[in-house]
Amino acid sequence: MPGALPPVLRIDDPADPRIAGFVSIKERDLTGRQGRFIAEGTVVLRMLAAAHETGRGFAAEALLLLENRLEGVGDILRRFPPDVPVYVANAQVFDAIAGFNMHRGVLALGRREGEPDRDALIASLPASSLVLAACGISNHDNMGALFRNAAAFGVDAVLMDETSCDPMYRKAIRVSVGSVLTVPFAREGSVAVMLQQLQDAGFAIWGLSPAGTIDIGAIPAAQRTALLMGTEGEGLPQSVMTAIQTARIRQRPGLDSLNVSTAAGIALHQVALINGRI
Amino acid sequence: MPGALPPVLRIDDPADPRIAGFVSIKERDLTGRQGRFIAEGTVVLRMLAAAHETGRGFAAEALLLLENRLEGVGDILRRFPPDVPVYVANAQVFDAIAGFNMHRGVLALGRREGEPDRDALIASLPASSLVLAACGISNHDNMGALFRNAAAFGVDAVLMDETSCDPMYRKAIRVSVGSVLTVPFAREGSVAVMLQQLQDAGFAIWGLSPAGTIDIGAIPAAQRTALLMGTEGEGLPQSVMTAIQTARIRQRPGLDSLNVSTAAGIALHQVALINGRI
Repeated sequence: MPGALPPVLRIDDPADPRIAGFVSIKERDLTGRQGRFIAEGTVVLRMLAAAHETGRGFAAEALLLLENRLEGVGDILRRFPPDVPVYVANAQVFDAIAGFNMHRGVLALGRREGEPDRDALIASLPASSLVLAACGISNHDNMGALFRNAAAFGVDAVLMDETSCDPMYRKAIRVSVGSVLTVPFAREGSVAVMLQQLQDAGFAIWGLSPAGTIDIGAIPAAQRTALLMGTEGEGLPQSVMTAIQTARIRQRPGLDSLNVSTAAGIALHQVALINGRI
Repeated sequence: MPGALPPVLRIDDPADPRIAGFVSIKERDLTGRQGRFIAEGTVVLRMLAAAHETGRGFAAEALLLLENRLEGVGDILRRFPPDVPVYVANAQVFDAIAGFNMHRGVLALGRREGEPDRDALIASLPASSLVLAACGISNHDNMGALFRNAAAFGVDAVLMDETSCDPMYRKAIRVSVGSVLTVPFAREGSVAVMLQQLQDAGFAIWGLSPAGTIDIGAIPAAQRTALLMGTEGEGLPQSVMTAIQTARIRQRPGLDSLNVSTAAGIALHQVALINGRI
């Protein structure tokens, strides 16, 4: 049940130590955040509130709002625990704090409570499951877009190898439209071990590649399907391609392949249809 | 036939007037370029060379290369007319010119020779055609991604209303992986006039929307199909939705809709399959 509107604390000095966690967030992306993350925009704030309520392992530590955005997000603020401070600032102070003006006036500093464990995540999946697996995804926009597509097509978990980038990076969260807070994920270890675990758990694994052996439309229905995406440039390593079944998206020849998240979207849509998940 | 390697002109001073067109290209994006555009990276450079050769209305005015990239692109340089100057610089000078370091060491300053005319473009389309139409696309990443998908699925032309952003913006070109140089396009006037012209030319027009009346899989084959995408936020205006046939991509309920270019990719793949174009 929504609680009372929390007290609002006005910030007039960009150097105020209470909002130190929001200072120069763009530069700070590069140095890491020790389990902290930045969520931007109203939609993502709403999803953070939901993650808070459902105990998904994400907690808000503080919110920073442009003063004229306060009224519009009142219903969301009531959903956070009363001890999460809500700071407001005018546009000038806000921009001086954040260091850029692409935050849409709504920022949250969040904390991730422990790294998810892949064993436990796989063990928790329902009998009928769809998994998006990825190795070597290095671009945060692509990572965020993969999660957005995963959410749209009912993916139960996203599994990444250790060479993939962190989905909790600010831009990945934004591009995912908050889906990194709702779709369970784990990022650890090698792709070989990940595939072995999926196989042991009864997943039919399909690697997506322009060199795949069948069209995605021919992927058969299965209780448990995992779709594996490779890196943006090289795609799936040859050792992986020969170890699993592979599928391709038909397209005009002689071109660069599709963007990795677009390809995942097309294939997930197809697999979700085949398995009656959408 | 490839010609000789053009003479290479070394730049040691970032203020050298010969490379003024490359100075601070990131800031210059915001102010417009009077028919000029910036192409980045080897893949796009190759497509610019091809556009030059085939007379697609794009010409290179000058190339600027990081010195260690020169050898790798020699085969592409030979394809440009000998009067297109090739400048090289070391990393320090290069970054001082361009103002940032995301250019991958390969930049071309291009010129668009006249705005394409929509009437003429529609009149030039083959009997069997696939058109991607768009209104109100304001994000350059989305615009570039739309072109990349259009190329992958054999779109004959991209038509945009006047409220859509310019595909020749630097970032749109980069995200399109050069497809804006190969897929014919026109951007002018209102969406209402554009749809009327497509209808007069015998196109079956399908608007893509989460509120569409049939699944994309049920779109019938047709000699000429146009797929219409709306803005990133609002989607297609209600007046358009009621005037044309509409289709939806099935997805999990209660979520933000898909990214516009991902949605276009999924629908174009489907329509291209139905019409035997891929």
